[in-house]
Amino acid sequence: MNKYEALVERLREINNINNAVSVLSWDQQTSMPPGGAPARARQMGTLARIGHELFTDEATGRLLNEAENEVDDVYESDAVSMLRVVRKDYSEATRLPAAFVAEFTQLTALAHEVWAKARAASDFAAFAPTLEKLLELAHRGAEYLGYEEHPYDALLGRYEPGMTTRRVGEIFDAHRPVLTSLINRISAAPQVDDSAVRRRFEVAQQREFGLMVIQKMGFDMQRGLQAISVHPFCTSFSVNDVRITTRFEDDFLNPALFGMIHEAGHAMYEQGVAQHLDGTPLANGTSLGVHESQSRMWENIVGRSRGFWSWALPHLKTAFPQLSDVSDEAFYRAINKVERSFIRVEADEATYNLHIILRFEIEKDLLTGALAVKDLPRAWNERFETYLGVVPPNDALGCLQDVHWSAGLMGYFPTYALGNLLSVQYYDAAVTAHPDIPAQIARGEFGTLRQWLGQNIHQHGRKFTAEELTRRITGGSIDPAPYVRYLEAKFTDVYGL
Amino acid sequence: MNKYEALVERLREINNINNAVSVLSWDQQTSMPPGGAPARARQMGTLARIGHELFTDEATGRLLNEAENEVDDVYESDAVSMLRVVRKDYSEATRLPAAFVAEFTQLTALAHEVWAKARAASDFAAFAPTLEKLLELAHRGAEYLGYEEHPYDALLGRYEPGMTTRRVGEIFDAHRPVLTSLINRISAAPQVDDSAVRRRFEVAQQREFGLMVIQKMGFDMQRGLQAISVHPFCTSFSVNDVRITTRFEDDFLNPALFGMIHEAGHAMYEQGVAQHLDGTPLANGTSLGVHESQSRMWENIVGRSRGFWSWALPHLKTAFPQLSDVSDEAFYRAINKVERSFIRVEADEATYNLHIILRFEIEKDLLTGALAVKDLPRAWNERFETYLGVVPPNDALGCLQDVHWSAGLMGYFPTYALGNLLSVQYYDAAVTAHPDIPAQIARGEFGTLRQWLGQNIHQHGRKFTAEELTRRITGGSIDPAPYVRYLEAKFTDVYGL
Repeated sequence: MNKYEALVERLREINNINNAVSVLSWDQQTSMPPGGAPARARQMGTLARIGHELFTDEATGRLLNEAENEVDDVYESDAVSMLRVVRKDYSEATRLPAAFVAEFTQLTALAHEVWAKARAASDFAAFAPTLEKLLELAHRGAEYLGYEEHPYDALLGRYEPGMTTRRVGEIFDAHRPVLTSLINRISAAPQVDDSAVRRRFEVAQQREFGLMVIQKMGFDMQRGLQAISVHPFCTSFSVNDVRITTRFEDDFLNPALFGMIHEAGHAMYEQGVAQHLDGTPLANGTSLGVHESQSRMWENIVGRSRGFWSWALPHLKTAFPQLSDVSDEAFYRAINKVERSFIRVEADEATYNLHIILRFEIEKDLLTGALAVKDLPRAWNERFETYLGVVPPNDALGCLQDVHWSAGLMGYFPTYALGNLLSVQYYDAAVTAHPDIPAQIARGEFGTLRQWLGQNIHQHGRKFTAEELTRRITGGSIDPAPYVRYLEAKFTDVYGL
Repeated sequence: MNKYEALVERLREINNINNAVSVLSWDQQTSMPPGGAPARARQMGTLARIGHELFTDEATGRLLNEAENEVDDVYESDAVSMLRVVRKDYSEATRLPAAFVAEFTQLTALAHEVWAKARAASDFAAFAPTLEKLLELAHRGAEYLGYEEHPYDALLGRYEPGMTTRRVGEIFDAHRPVLTSLINRISAAPQVDDSAVRRRFEVAQQREFGLMVIQKMGFDMQRGLQAISVHPFCTSFSVNDVRITTRFEDDFLNPALFGMIHEAGHAMYEQGVAQHLDGTPLANGTSLGVHESQSRMWENIVGRSRGFWSWALPHLKTAFPQLSDVSDEAFYRAINKVERSFIRVEADEATYNLHIILRFEIEKDLLTGALAVKDLPRAWNERFETYLGVVPPNDALGCLQDVHWSAGLMGYFPTYALGNLLSVQYYDAAVTAHPDIPAQIARGEFGTLRQWLGQNIHQHGRKFTAEELTRRITGGSIDPAPYVRYLEAKFTDVYGL
């Protein structure tokens, strides 16, 4: 066994431990009885510590150095990519001192409770001191990790490797005013009626219909499953064991249906990684932005398209005869209703990126201190009004709504918006290669699109960075123009602008 | 921190790893999609190896030696018990060489497939060579572990610490002829009609009724849950997270209902261990025999009693109106039907121990070589006819029926029968202390019995050996006489002998 092979072998063992932690977390969120929480925290803590110790051990660093000297720098070789991502992960893991990681873990464990209570009471002042500490730790973390231009770069880079704060700012500035203008025009038009999706829908039938749809799309139930949880998510323990969760509402069709398609989009990415990468550090999505491009493409570009519902609506009406009076057009408009709403996770396609842009600008300023924590609610509300034309009536519907900051996830939000942009760029490339894709979707056939995604994105896992992947697919870089064109065309039509 | 505390701290960490393996196994048996199997085997393998390495490491041995010198030998102190069980576990774990454990793990992984196919085809010859190897390993294992009198002692002692082959033989010899004679008298009497429990029963209703019953008995759903699996089992990740599984049949009430009560009996034992022992080596049942005494007491002595059904039958009839025509007496007899059946897991109370006694005698002879593997089917069938009066028509219904040998579980079977004996001894002691217990059960009140069990058995975990526990409770040792008296009285009545 050469050094490279020895390194990969060691990383596979560590991966087994990390994947075991993910199984424990899955069980915690989908099954565990309340009494199990303290023991589960101890079990996950022990395994995470062992995995971290093995990964940051000198032995890993030595093997990594030796493997880097041994492997020839051949572009597109798995080995070169493997060493690139391991070097990145190893640097991040070893730059953060153990004492800092422990402090961070402790604070976020407590912060979640504080935040949940503050949000329930819509009491920002109750969360402010904790947020101060979280920001202080985020700042220290950025210093440990290192950055060239902006401390936010260090945080962002953990979720979107290679992306910079400056570039995100440029991308966001380039499409924010167009979105605001689109929303203004939509708001001036007569609102669409979404009563069709707000009837009674039996949860069991919702689940059955959703499973039929995502399996048609390509989610493989031999190598995955679906369960129920409070917050929907996708997790993976292997290329061959990828799971999603759903939250059902019995009087609103959208959350579960589009939620299942969204999570299945993530899951198909993970299931599509090449088998020979299974268990290695390359066997996941390459960035959160690219991951989100997959979930959003299936949820929105496919799942909220007229073509898709020309195939799917008759099936939905069989499952829910109460929809028999709903026309194709009325249903299509109902699922594409645009609203100036306050909550990001419920936002429609047209407003979604504005929710993200606002967060990016605010957390960047919080990190540098350009915005003081005490001024956050005011800054949030002012910006919200500028971008979306309305003011949140309270902080629960404003700056307290997201779980991310309390979990220490700063620099994470931009990946949602980047994913939306990439979803259209990638879909356009797929249709350029296979112009028949939209017609196939209208027949309930998703194989060509899925295979194209598998070939061009999924199989590679982390082999290419988001930037490389996008260049290989589009010949260019991430670009908001196709997304804006897509939204303009779609909502001009839906709202008859 | 003194050495004893350092030892316990180290063992808690190891326990976290072992409990994580149990969570992975639970998920594997209740949820995992088929594709997940290879990755799951790798994850469990890595964690089991780490747990084993940490436990058998010199550091554990050193701490154990030091703690033994440090702790005063005070009877009934937790520390003394802790050191006793750790010394036992440590000796067992360190006496088996790593190469032997690896060989054993590999063989049993393959053996399961070989056995499953052989059983499906009722082809003993296909399993025989594998069984030879399993026995050879069992024998080597016994030599490594060490024993005073009989190699079977070493295997038996892993499941029933302190019990010997000689003693089991005496206990079994003392009640085998009485059971055979009872079966003969029952078989001469008119058979009871069990058609009442062999109707259509909706699985969802079965589950709901079963959950109502076991919660009434004391299974705590805040600290446990129930799921579905092919083979019912109970597992525990903490005193506060104890889970059971059920297998449902939609045309036979017994398997799921009595299966749920049985597993809940195990689960209440695990849930009842004192909170301060949680996460330590004392936080489990003290032996498989004592564990089985709890499951069998709730399943049979309580769950198959006339009193229990005077309370439960009206509730069952509400759940299943199709039972409205069934009298109390007809129902009671239906659930207590005795049959000379071939399959142990379906055996009734009267025949069950005979199935076990036969296995004990045979595996003991296989281990010493007194019985050759090729002669096993003949020996099985001959003995079956002597004890139970019928001959299995094929080996799938005979010597190929159990999973145990293929899993390397030799010396395990006797604990089932010992559990039956203990269940009556313990129940009699509870009723002696609280003569009102039977009347309470007939009112659906189980608190007094459960609290007595909690006080006298559950809370102690592994603190006392089975022998000590039985002496504390009964003043004597394990004894088949109460069990025989119980069966005689019950079935003389059921069959009007």
